[in-house]
Amino acid sequence: MEVGAFFSSLKNCFKSITRIGTDDPRRVLHSLKVATALTLLSIIYWGRAVYGITRLVMSVMTVVGVFEFSVGGTLCKSVNRICATLIGGALGVAEQHLATALVEIEETVLLLILVFILGAITTFFRFFPKIKAIYDSGVVIFMTTFLLVAFSKHGVEKIFERLLTILIGIITCTLISIFIWPVWAGEDLHILLASNIETLANCLIGFEVNYFDNQIRDKSVLQGYETVLKSEATEESLTNLARWEPAHGFFRPRHPWNQYKKIGAFIKKCASKIESLHDYLNPEIPISSEFKFKIKKPCSRIITELYKALKVISSSTEIMVHPSAAKRHIEKAKAAAGELNFFLETVSLEEAKFLSIIPVGTVAFILEEITQLVEKIYQSIAELSELAEFKNVGEVTVSPEKPHVS
Amino acid sequence: MEVGAFFSSLKNCFKSITRIGTDDPRRVLHSLKVATALTLLSIIYWGRAVYGITRLVMSVMTVVGVFEFSVGGTLCKSVNRICATLIGGALGVAEQHLATALVEIEETVLLLILVFILGAITTFFRFFPKIKAIYDSGVVIFMTTFLLVAFSKHGVEKIFERLLTILIGIITCTLISIFIWPVWAGEDLHILLASNIETLANCLIGFEVNYFDNQIRDKSVLQGYETVLKSEATEESLTNLARWEPAHGFFRPRHPWNQYKKIGAFIKKCASKIESLHDYLNPEIPISSEFKFKIKKPCSRIITELYKALKVISSSTEIMVHPSAAKRHIEKAKAAAGELNFFLETVSLEEAKFLSIIPVGTVAFILEEITQLVEKIYQSIAELSELAEFKNVGEVTVSPEKPHVS
Repeated sequence: MEVGAFFSSLKNCFKSITRIGTDDPRRVLHSLKVATALTLLSIIYWGRAVYGITRLVMSVMTVVGVFEFSVGGTLCKSVNRICATLIGGALGVAEQHLATALVEIEETVLLLILVFILGAITTFFRFFPKIKAIYDSGVVIFMTTFLLVAFSKHGVEKIFERLLTILIGIITCTLISIFIWPVWAGEDLHILLASNIETLANCLIGFEVNYFDNQIRDKSVLQGYETVLKSEATEESLTNLARWEPAHGFFRPRHPWNQYKKIGAFIKKCASKIESLHDYLNPEIPISSEFKFKIKKPCSRIITELYKALKVISSSTEIMVHPSAAKRHIEKAKAAAGELNFFLETVSLEEAKFLSIIPVGTVAFILEEITQLVEKIYQSIAELSELAEFKNVGEVTVSPEKPHVS
Repeated sequence: MEVGAFFSSLKNCFKSITRIGTDDPRRVLHSLKVATALTLLSIIYWGRAVYGITRLVMSVMTVVGVFEFSVGGTLCKSVNRICATLIGGALGVAEQHLATALVEIEETVLLLILVFILGAITTFFRFFPKIKAIYDSGVVIFMTTFLLVAFSKHGVEKIFERLLTILIGIITCTLISIFIWPVWAGEDLHILLASNIETLANCLIGFEVNYFDNQIRDKSVLQGYETVLKSEATEESLTNLARWEPAHGFFRPRHPWNQYKKIGAFIKKCASKIESLHDYLNPEIPISSEFKFKIKKPCSRIITELYKALKVISSSTEIMVHPSAAKRHIEKAKAAAGELNFFLETVSLEEAKFLSIIPVGTVAFILEEITQLVEKIYQSIAELSELAEFKNVGEVTVSPEKPHVS
């Protein structure tokens, strides 16, 4: 049995490795790129005895520290590392100049005081969330450069030597990152946005099929809103990294990355409304079937039109075309919502029990709110397409059929 | 004007520094603790020329790399760093043994191939979210140790020297971390849980005052649920770190940290229901005042009892006492919910408009769901208090008055 357990855990391990790799095959490529950079630098510093070893270790630290998955991440970390080296080195040189006027014991005390103060300040600044994310590895470089320069007698040569080693490492990483299978954070952000919008569309239609047609639920289609809600942190970090990237492909210089935050916020609100909708699929909630049947037609129309609108917005965002083709679907959805509203205002409720009517009415109510949110998503994407000068192809052909949720 | 802008941004900068410090003064203490460790190690390696410098740099890297805010974090990173050094060193020694049978050019090729393979594997493993969080700095140590040992001819001495330097750094950090103003992740987690429960209580009563008494909203009290919803990541990382900590104070060995996850999940569900409640404070939503007045009494009773129950649960969790005193408040809330349900089932709706009744009915509906969730929170905390052997003081004195939300 123990051998069986060992093999099954080994199998699980293999499975999760395969999953990480197949979820995004660029991860495998990235690993190979980092390995290439490390090997190249090993060749450069090859066979230079102890002297070479120190530099090689410095290079390896640079590669592991700055070579991030995306081009933006690599550039951001590179600049951060150069700055940390320069500031640490400058402070070390300044300390040496200060120390020339002092006797040895005084210099020792000065250095220890400086170590204490710099240590306290750099540690404290790591509590700022923004600094923590970017500058964490920079702190090590800053402190070690300062100490190397301040403690050794050949300070200035040391810092140039160090800077050169770091620069060679950084240039190797940057060139490989940009020219061999580049991963652009900006592109990832753009695609994430489009796919989140598509997920909303699928969740909506999945809800309709389950709620009004009583089909069996397919959790994977339904719970897409969870993925959307969880993507907030990813979106934020991609936005920050995208700013570091040079123009590439469709993305010109000064691409309006800020707009993505605004769009993302509307998408998130819409996803959380869809989450509330899905709460009402709970079979324990009493539901008046009669009343549900009455509102089925307008609700289905709203959902179908919103589905089409979201699909068009998603696909036109993906190919960078103005989403104008979604406009008429949104108008139709709004018209259907108006009808639903009118129906709810005039409905007679003499027969049904109130307790079983509330949940159905709430569903109708949430659908109206979702209609407004989809319009806001449309407007914010339209703004983006004007700011980023998307193409203006009148109509985009997309297939607005329902997906098979069974 | 430019000078004015400069001064105002300087002022903002000072403000955010003060805020980071006053939000949690232990951050300042932590910075001083790290600075102390750095200064101590600088004194140890003082004046040992070039030889000392390399060790000093290694020590500084160790301190910056392992000295985390909490004791658990420091211990976790320390173990990770020792393992990385040992494995890297062992691989380096293994490579040297392999290489004795090879001529120089063959050894070179072998080394480069190993660098490539290890670089690719370590980079790939950083894509596993769990590994990324803990082992990121370990990768640098692993690679550099391997290279140092493999490239230099005196491999084995080198690794012991390195290990010794790292050990001295780690012992310094651990001792300072545990014995000078220790910050325990476990304690933080426990207090966070208790304060989240209290926040839920305040949000609930804040809702009642705003919804039924039409008082002006105080956003800070109302939106506490957002803080609770956002604390999920903090809770998870604290739970992981708490497992690394030795027994301390009320926390015995094998404290049931897993139970905190379960409690946290119920708290989160409850917070998201309270969020839905607060959506109905939106003045744009049409509301039937007449109907609202009818359900005011039972709803207020539910909320008041739940408020008392949550307050008792929170305060007894904080002082590690069984929350049995909350039981009767929950029973009263459930009784009130039953009455509300009966009222909703029998209410006559001939006069009011349906559209303005739905939102009010939904509020009642959500309150019933919240009652169930508070009971689940109570049960899971009761389980915790049995697992962790809390004291069993029959009744805890707490003041269940309403806070001033105005």
